[in-house]
Amino acid sequence: MAAPYRYSRIAESMRPSPIRELFKLTQRPGMISFAGGLPDPAIFPVAEFAECASALRERGTVALQYGATEGYRPLVEAIVARMEPLLGRPIAPEQVVVTSGSQQAMDMLARVLVDPGDVIVVEAPTYPGALHTFRAAGARFALVECDADGMRVDALAGVIERCRRETGRLPKLVYSIVNFSNPSGACLSAARRASLAALAAEHGVPVLEDDPYGELRYGGERLPTVFAAARGGVVFASSFSKILAPGVRVAWAVGEPELIRKMVIAKQGMDLCTSMVAQVVVAEYCRRGHLDAHLAKIRSHYAAKAAAMAQALERELPAGAARFVTPEGGFFFWLRFAGRDSRALFEAAVERGVAFLPGGAFYPDPAETVGDAVDGREFARLCFTFAQPDEIAEGCRRLAAALR
Amino acid sequence: MAAPYRYSRIAESMRPSPIRELFKLTQRPGMISFAGGLPDPAIFPVAEFAECASALRERGTVALQYGATEGYRPLVEAIVARMEPLLGRPIAPEQVVVTSGSQQAMDMLARVLVDPGDVIVVEAPTYPGALHTFRAAGARFALVECDADGMRVDALAGVIERCRRETGRLPKLVYSIVNFSNPSGACLSAARRASLAALAAEHGVPVLEDDPYGELRYGGERLPTVFAAARGGVVFASSFSKILAPGVRVAWAVGEPELIRKMVIAKQGMDLCTSMVAQVVVAEYCRRGHLDAHLAKIRSHYAAKAAAMAQALERELPAGAARFVTPEGGFFFWLRFAGRDSRALFEAAVERGVAFLPGGAFYPDPAETVGDAVDGREFARLCFTFAQPDEIAEGCRRLAAALR
Repeated sequence: MAAPYRYSRIAESMRPSPIRELFKLTQRPGMISFAGGLPDPAIFPVAEFAECASALRERGTVALQYGATEGYRPLVEAIVARMEPLLGRPIAPEQVVVTSGSQQAMDMLARVLVDPGDVIVVEAPTYPGALHTFRAAGARFALVECDADGMRVDALAGVIERCRRETGRLPKLVYSIVNFSNPSGACLSAARRASLAALAAEHGVPVLEDDPYGELRYGGERLPTVFAAARGGVVFASSFSKILAPGVRVAWAVGEPELIRKMVIAKQGMDLCTSMVAQVVVAEYCRRGHLDAHLAKIRSHYAAKAAAMAQALERELPAGAARFVTPEGGFFFWLRFAGRDSRALFEAAVERGVAFLPGGAFYPDPAETVGDAVDGREFARLCFTFAQPDEIAEGCRRLAAALR
Repeated sequence: MAAPYRYSRIAESMRPSPIRELFKLTQRPGMISFAGGLPDPAIFPVAEFAECASALRERGTVALQYGATEGYRPLVEAIVARMEPLLGRPIAPEQVVVTSGSQQAMDMLARVLVDPGDVIVVEAPTYPGALHTFRAAGARFALVECDADGMRVDALAGVIERCRRETGRLPKLVYSIVNFSNPSGACLSAARRASLAALAAEHGVPVLEDDPYGELRYGGERLPTVFAAARGGVVFASSFSKILAPGVRVAWAVGEPELIRKMVIAKQGMDLCTSMVAQVVVAEYCRRGHLDAHLAKIRSHYAAKAAAMAQALERELPAGAARFVTPEGGFFFWLRFAGRDSRALFEAAVERGVAFLPGGAFYPDPAETVGDAVDGREFARLCFTFAQPDEIAEGCRRLAAALR
């Protein structure tokens, strides 16, 4: 006898992620996958990290006990030291909360800001996991299109105004992946960062500056954060997932003390605190100074892979079949196959043994969109960090075969 | 310039936990604390656990990568093997989800079941962290009183009926800490377990059987789970927090596959997966067979502390000042000071250098209660696991002084 659960409205409309359904199709032996957004396990600092686990012995009674919801203090201090130059002003420990991945920072912010029906402004395209989290809080979405310089911030005021007109309320948040966006790979230009900070203040709409990839720059110059350009109203989130390893599930958010305090109260009801075992080992990894050495190593490792994919795409794809800009960092190429449906192309590609993610996954449904919806049917995301260099070349050959 | 955040309705009504405010008062040097519900760090298996961290080297690429939201498969299998005898029937891995503490299992269930205004039936008194989590989903509470045999299940049908009459809806869930309840220490009798299972099925209201303390029995016989007595409609949750260490933040829930699937989808938006670093080390700890040896050790360690507190309370407190039943397991004594306000007593006790938690923290506010509210003003929770034996005796002497 299965119990007759009476689910919440959110749960009634929950569907397994369409991306996960696609992943199932990519599990065949011999498949070359550009689909997942995974770091290369070959470059995980396994030995150094395992050595740092000696901290579990030295600080065992701390690592094994409940910790402060705000985060393990030595880790908070390491984060503060790392963040201050980037955020352009002194940061108090009370402005930081350690989270169980950036996903949790989004979830905390959603709980603290979003009532059902509220609108969040997102880039089109954007990270599907963010849509999933915000959707679970009952959010709807208003879209700002992107180009090679990231979010079209010049369109933001219009989107906010239209949201106010159509819903009677301002959006609760602008969500932007400012550096090497997932999926577009684009980097928000310096001028747009400044105007995003100004516009958000002018309209009274806070910004979540999500920056998991900022340290993974392979070319060009680092740009100032939106947080640094603003006088307030920006929550900056980043993570150890891409710069160290996602399996730790340790990330952080920085914001105004009052907001962080509310996020901490929300987190008490979510998981009490982030795994102390993980936090203590990550703090030790930082304390021993491994992080910057490791970052230098992964930057050159991934830069080579990005170059390999750029060359293979240029070399293998039929002329004019796809347009793309080689990203200066991050994990992704974002291809436009003009006039082609990338979902159909996905099927043909999987048949030939290569997988990517069709663009549709990166846009909200029209039914949950306030204002104009966008579909991503001509687009595809290719992750270049996970596959090995020879697989990158062969995968692009297979993709070319699927295109013909 | 602080940003003018427009918070969600839930966040607007968020207050720092009254318990945390009380804890601040207990931070004085020399304070003997029976207030927190903490395990004794002196008994954490620091050396064994740190040795198991060698798994971070051997299975480093798994431990450092993203994992399945459902949980690390070897850990899921260890949990299944441990749960089957307890739950009285074969459990498929698809019925299990590994969570970031039991707190997260509650949060997942709240998201999947609760719309704002829905009612959850809780024991009075109950775990304040559960109230916090359910409240964040917009739940209200209906109360069933407890006695020395746990929840008064004979009153449950009436509470469900009254909830239906007053709100037009059935409650979404019955929440019960069946073994050595936090705070009451009571164990739900076998007869009540059977009737809870039957009543829940009859009324179509599922049960969350929260069992963090079930393995910490110091006397008497283990009772069958509600899950085993039911044919469905029971979610069983337990955790490594009390049997190994809370700092790992690894727990689990077992239920029907459809419900677990929805909880997994909810968890994707919460933290993607529980720390793989923590899961891999905990799985190794289980694989090496440490858990049962450690459990035997903590059972005898805590049994001695429970006996020490029982003796000290009997010996030190003025005759007739407090009534209590010595718990057969878990972490807590639940005292009734007839005719005394335990909040005022708390102040007097803290002044004399001993802290506990006044009963009021363990009941929902009248404003969020459907049906009759209960206040806990005559009650107090004393945790016996954290303090050392000589502190237990001295703490009870100080409490006696405060009572006089």
